[in-house]
Amino acid sequence: MAPRFSVFIATSLDGYIAREGGDIDWLQIVHPLDASHGYDEFFASCDALVVGRGTYDTVLGFAEYPYAGKRVFVLTHRPAEPRHGETFVAGTAHDVVARVGDAQRVYVDGGNVIRQFFAANLITDATISIVPIVLGSGIRLFERGEGEHRLQLQDHRAWPSGLVQLRYTVNP
Amino acid sequence: MAPRFSVFIATSLDGYIAREGGDIDWLQIVHPLDASHGYDEFFASCDALVVGRGTYDTVLGFAEYPYAGKRVFVLTHRPAEPRHGETFVAGTAHDVVARVGDAQRVYVDGGNVIRQFFAANLITDATISIVPIVLGSGIRLFERGEGEHRLQLQDHRAWPSGLVQLRYTVNP
Repeated sequence: MAPRFSVFIATSLDGYIAREGGDIDWLQIVHPLDASHGYDEFFASCDALVVGRGTYDTVLGFAEYPYAGKRVFVLTHRPAEPRHGETFVAGTAHDVVARVGDAQRVYVDGGNVIRQFFAANLITDATISIVPIVLGSGIRLFERGEGEHRLQLQDHRAWPSGLVQLRYTVNP
Repeated sequence: MAPRFSVFIATSLDGYIAREGGDIDWLQIVHPLDASHGYDEFFASCDALVVGRGTYDTVLGFAEYPYAGKRVFVLTHRPAEPRHGETFVAGTAHDVVARVGDAQRVYVDGGNVIRQFFAANLITDATISIVPIVLGSGIRLFERGEGEHRLQLQDHRAWPSGLVQLRYTVNP
């Protein structure tokens, strides 16, 4: 069976995943007040991840490697040595697909990588959590170039903090 | 009592209010399937509107003037003759506020006008309807420059078409 390629991400109401420069302090509005908004269950349901080089380099700086036990693909054109068995892919989203093997669900993370996978018609489902703030500037989740995709709303839920989570499947 | 300045608008999941060039054909996904998603009640609750010149010129081309019975302010620097008692304001959002008189609720419409009113800290509430589609390009609702605003989620609702409507008040 073809693996699922899944997005799980939080944005401000105006569509930013971080401030200019990368600061995500504003996520404290909703976290940890409402715990993980289903992230733990989502993460457990994924047996592989694909991330960009920026996310990967950030994660390497963490005290504990957060992707232990998952197959990790890093989309990057800059050479690197695997530290935890990662696979570096200097190619396209389709080159990742060719290498995911028997993975059942792949967590697609990071704005650039998400855009590439949408553009390649590979995203199967997306869970978008909308944080109750307008930032006015920042790094966008959707930066243009994702292509047009019809969605099916599967679920919607609000938390006491005002976070609203929308879960969609993407029409092929 | 100070008037409310209210936003009521639909966007794609990626934050566009129209395609490049202005086409809104994709709104047919949800409309008229689910009727007006509360728009009629919202419109009835407003005794005044403020729109930009683009919206105004578009509306003048309609078979029937849709703002009959409302006080209408048009933010524009290009001179025009009122056709239906409109007030043309060649100034800022605050210049509109100075002229709304005893209006109770002002419908703030159009991307540029909404941005100016957010930037001036005048928006009191916003109802955003998210249409289940990713467009990949278009004219954004939030184009940067709105400033930072904390929101309070008041309500959320989904329709059978997959449209999700989020209603927020804006912290002053």
